[in-house]
Amino acid sequence: MLDICLLGTGGMMPLPYRFLTSLMVRYNGHTVMIDCGEATQISARLQGWSFKDIDVLMITHFHADHISGLPGLLLAIGNADRREPLTIVGPKNIEKVVNSLRVIAPELPFEIKFIEIQGNEQVFDLVGLRIKAFRVNHNILCYGYSIELDRKGRFNAEAAKELEIPIKLWKVLQSGNDVTVDGKVFTSDMVMGEDRKGLKVTYCTDTRPTDVIAEAAGGSDLFICEGMYGENDAETMDKAKAKKHMTMTEAALLAEQAGVAEMWLTHYSPSITKPKMYLDDIKKIFPNTVMGKDRLTKELKFED
Amino acid sequence: MLDICLLGTGGMMPLPYRFLTSLMVRYNGHTVMIDCGEATQISARLQGWSFKDIDVLMITHFHADHISGLPGLLLAIGNADRREPLTIVGPKNIEKVVNSLRVIAPELPFEIKFIEIQGNEQVFDLVGLRIKAFRVNHNILCYGYSIELDRKGRFNAEAAKELEIPIKLWKVLQSGNDVTVDGKVFTSDMVMGEDRKGLKVTYCTDTRPTDVIAEAAGGSDLFICEGMYGENDAETMDKAKAKKHMTMTEAALLAEQAGVAEMWLTHYSPSITKPKMYLDDIKKIFPNTVMGKDRLTKELKFED
Repeated sequence: MLDICLLGTGGMMPLPYRFLTSLMVRYNGHTVMIDCGEATQISARLQGWSFKDIDVLMITHFHADHISGLPGLLLAIGNADRREPLTIVGPKNIEKVVNSLRVIAPELPFEIKFIEIQGNEQVFDLVGLRIKAFRVNHNILCYGYSIELDRKGRFNAEAAKELEIPIKLWKVLQSGNDVTVDGKVFTSDMVMGEDRKGLKVTYCTDTRPTDVIAEAAGGSDLFICEGMYGENDAETMDKAKAKKHMTMTEAALLAEQAGVAEMWLTHYSPSITKPKMYLDDIKKIFPNTVMGKDRLTKELKFED
Repeated sequence: MLDICLLGTGGMMPLPYRFLTSLMVRYNGHTVMIDCGEATQISARLQGWSFKDIDVLMITHFHADHISGLPGLLLAIGNADRREPLTIVGPKNIEKVVNSLRVIAPELPFEIKFIEIQGNEQVFDLVGLRIKAFRVNHNILCYGYSIELDRKGRFNAEAAKELEIPIKLWKVLQSGNDVTVDGKVFTSDMVMGEDRKGLKVTYCTDTRPTDVIAEAAGGSDLFICEGMYGENDAETMDKAKAKKHMTMTEAALLAEQAGVAEMWLTHYSPSITKPKMYLDDIKKIFPNTVMGKDRLTKELKFED
């Protein structure tokens, strides 16, 4: 199960009624967070999810609205008495940028491990999740992220019994390893069914729509995408193209192209006071669209 | 007239119901701000005071809760299309620290002028106000600030007429300069009364109580002081001394010693959920105490 919380839905600046776009995902006692703008920690406090459990922080890019809350977040994690290392993933120079911001948070009770994304895409296995960073098209180097939780096939107990494998060794086979009994090797695939459908969440903001995004988001149970602008007139399109953002319509077309199960829109321009006014139109393009709002949550569960 | 707004009243971290301690003072179209922690810009938006008019930003010290909102504030000021220079006053290394934080806010449409406070106290004349920085006693270099607005004496029109000074020269005398009429010198003091009582606000947070503070705050119309802790038991006092903070009681004694007209308490520990529960006791020491709350405002006016 993945516990999802969209901490904020704003772009550019934190507003009294809208925090900056950030995502928290909890899995098996671990928490990963994507982006941390100014005041994101307030929204996390309102949500009540533990700071101490934040194991991985992924930064999409170095515009302030996606990273300005970082020193405060690190101090909050420290105040929650975390002692285990924290991993920060981000674009080239992530370590330099974080250390520059840490001029006001130099002392922390935990170590920070940095992962600087190399090239256009990279996959990391972190806290039991497969995290893929993929480059998007913004006016500075920016990445989207997909988070995948795999699900093994069913264990065939009947087959294991027939093969006379001792019960105490079943766990080894279930975890994908071989066992040897009386000199005879039993491989995992003898007792495990085909991998079943896992869970996938894709987060993508501050970009023009691209095929890379559609491909990376393919098959997502949840696609969280920027919808910076609600209108589609020529002036708005020019602005979206110049500032390298997307309209909600473009996001919906991307969701359709990627074949995702559900899309949440986020990263609204401060000028949009009521995102929901656009929902009916967007649903005509991608019916399973949800207009994101601060602290929208969802439990993603395995099928059956 | 000075327009005062206490934007936040928290210490350590921004909370859902309490922003970090920061002060805005407006005077004659100018705005000065003291401290800017994470999310201070949200409180300023709630208050509705213009970002564009912020001419001077004073930082007390480099703990994150007093400066973490700086990159976001600078961008907000830029978004408000300020083009005039902004002055930032702060402790030794202020320029280095601000530039380090600006890794995520490198481009601004205005120039920043830095004033690094020298020694234990320094006085600056900025935007028509006399600002005094005075060193306090915290665990890193930290300053309090007093802001004074002087008021000239009354102009004696009868005397000016008797001296046969042409009306068009009265303004020169009113602004403190001399004039020469038919070879005869008239000095300002011939027509101006004694300076009248001006206005004074003193802001002081993150410190143990000291005589320097009492002296600097002397005669203030408004003394804004930290009240980090409400209790006075031995354990709290040990904590206050170790962390170099004050209890509300200590603040009240300081207000009494300084002879200020009114005190606002602020910078409450996150553990204090209801500061007002301490008010009755504190008023026994200093009757004109106000328990600060976010966006508490006051217009300080000249007497009569």
